[in-house]
Amino acid sequence: MAGGKGERFWPRSRRSLPKQFLRVTSETKTMIGETLERTLLAADPANVFISLREDLLPAARQCLPDFPLDQYIVEPVGRDTAAAMGLASVVVERRRPGTVLAILPSDHLVAPAAVFAEDLKSACRVAQEYDCLVTFGVRPERPETGFGYIELGEVIHTRDRANAYEVRRFTEKPDRATAEKYLKTGNFCWNSGMFVWKPSVFLGELEKFLPDHYHGLREIQEWADDPGFCEKARPVFERLEKISVDFGVMEKARNILCLRANFGWDDVGHWTALERVYPKAADGGTVKGPVVLSDVKNSMVLNFDDASVVAVMGLKDVVVVKTADAVLVCDRRSDEEMKKLLRLISDRDDLKKFL
Amino acid sequence: MAGGKGERFWPRSRRSLPKQFLRVTSETKTMIGETLERTLLAADPANVFISLREDLLPAARQCLPDFPLDQYIVEPVGRDTAAAMGLASVVVERRRPGTVLAILPSDHLVAPAAVFAEDLKSACRVAQEYDCLVTFGVRPERPETGFGYIELGEVIHTRDRANAYEVRRFTEKPDRATAEKYLKTGNFCWNSGMFVWKPSVFLGELEKFLPDHYHGLREIQEWADDPGFCEKARPVFERLEKISVDFGVMEKARNILCLRANFGWDDVGHWTALERVYPKAADGGTVKGPVVLSDVKNSMVLNFDDASVVAVMGLKDVVVVKTADAVLVCDRRSDEEMKKLLRLISDRDDLKKFL
Repeated sequence: MAGGKGERFWPRSRRSLPKQFLRVTSETKTMIGETLERTLLAADPANVFISLREDLLPAARQCLPDFPLDQYIVEPVGRDTAAAMGLASVVVERRRPGTVLAILPSDHLVAPAAVFAEDLKSACRVAQEYDCLVTFGVRPERPETGFGYIELGEVIHTRDRANAYEVRRFTEKPDRATAEKYLKTGNFCWNSGMFVWKPSVFLGELEKFLPDHYHGLREIQEWADDPGFCEKARPVFERLEKISVDFGVMEKARNILCLRANFGWDDVGHWTALERVYPKAADGGTVKGPVVLSDVKNSMVLNFDDASVVAVMGLKDVVVVKTADAVLVCDRRSDEEMKKLLRLISDRDDLKKFL
Repeated sequence: MAGGKGERFWPRSRRSLPKQFLRVTSETKTMIGETLERTLLAADPANVFISLREDLLPAARQCLPDFPLDQYIVEPVGRDTAAAMGLASVVVERRRPGTVLAILPSDHLVAPAAVFAEDLKSACRVAQEYDCLVTFGVRPERPETGFGYIELGEVIHTRDRANAYEVRRFTEKPDRATAEKYLKTGNFCWNSGMFVWKPSVFLGELEKFLPDHYHGLREIQEWADDPGFCEKARPVFERLEKISVDFGVMEKARNILCLRANFGWDDVGHWTALERVYPKAADGGTVKGPVVLSDVKNSMVLNFDDASVVAVMGLKDVVVVKTADAVLVCDRRSDEEMKKLLRLISDRDDLKKFL
């Protein structure tokens, strides 16, 4: 899944080059490059597909020049994750009949890669055995309020002896007190946003909970191998409601099975999430690139433009990010609230080009 | 006087191009250009000299290509204002015998220019009539803690009927309570840092209060017209103590006379001083250039790089300044404390070039 906007990583992430195509958690590899690399530890290269919006194809092609063009699943327009996962399901059902589909975000931090690959293979066997939506739950390390949670039910003894559980419910991002309660009870996991299923199983759930999606996707399924797919499918796709797979399906479906992940995971969804990735400077701040701090506390100052300097003085709890043509300065508590700022930029004809 | 470092205007002001050579208070004119322009309303072009350190000569020549090279008074090294004004005095005494010397900072905001020119002519007549150090006092508009003050004594009825006063004392930058008291009493003025005197009068005071300065300057006076002046004077100049004219002379001298200025004045000594110059944005912030603010209060965001955008979100009381190759982010209360930051930059071999 490489159709995300990565808006909360502005100004590094841009409309035409969102977070998954950037080097964020590695100095040398893009996030999608890392995702592809660890996926190939478990999957045949011919069976890996990249799903994205049509307008992101140039960025993806530049980022992964060797990836086969016919293994892209291209959405004519973005219609959120329920539609994207539905499209992937109808395409894979048609092009690789009888296989299990694993859906993996391309902009998350997952490590170690080998542990992930084993877990993924396990999950595929479980999805093959059970006609279920299989998901990965990550054991929470802190009372995180930025992730969704999965409440686990009874253990399921699968043939594979995977660490599998029934799912009681998917829950929204909790407040702090709720997150602390979740952490204590021990039967809540972070929702990793990774899913494994037989396409037919997911499409069955879509038929129940999002029938318009289901019928639209069945309508365009027959064009899946057509070079003009995108143009043909556009009118159908444009009619689909924008709704996430969590809201639209996972919170309603009953046949979900959760595997406790053995790998480490972080969605690195906003700037301060990188404090968990980057080394801390001596004074407790997190810095990158040519940066000078004077009397600064609990802040993150990232300068991605080596031809420049960023100097911060007499402040605490701030995030400063500089790229070649843009600077973001915000309170660390506001770094998740980027949408409003980007709308303000989008409203300014002189500044749109910086989106 | 164009030898200032303008450090508190970093990152716009740089070692090789300090504030006086920048367009700060005008979109089209440099501060020294504006200073020269208003001075020429009162003075013959042949009688205007620019005093600066040798290393600033290239910047000045570029900024004022038509200004005659032989009207620069060049200090071999910077030794603060007592030495700079002493050097100007010995040079002018030798090259324009019998004239009065007006010493004018080149990086202050002074307006209207015509009013200034009249005041300056008045001051020159007073300095001609009285063997005094004549200074301009500016009627305070607010309890400013960033300026020095002059306490006025008795009115002096000069032949010129200038608004002249005896000076009780020069005072340091006051704290807030003291500044409020000064404002109430009505007989305190801001010290504008402009002085008018016969060179011989100032040199007489130097002889009393800074005899090493006096003797050193007398020693180099004879080379004033020598093209090799700078090299010859260097060893003498290097031995002079770094001391300001306020500390070294004005706070001790008795024969000072203060004219109340009719012109408006501001030393625009640091970034937030520009809030008094720039128009306020609708939300109460002061912005310049391509800038976006979201939920920002009482802040100043100046982007001097039109090819970029600066976005600030969820903060109050901050100053953000961007140039082509540097960004400053600081608390508005710390924008006067630039020295420590610049020392940190100076200590970093990779960052020195940004000074």
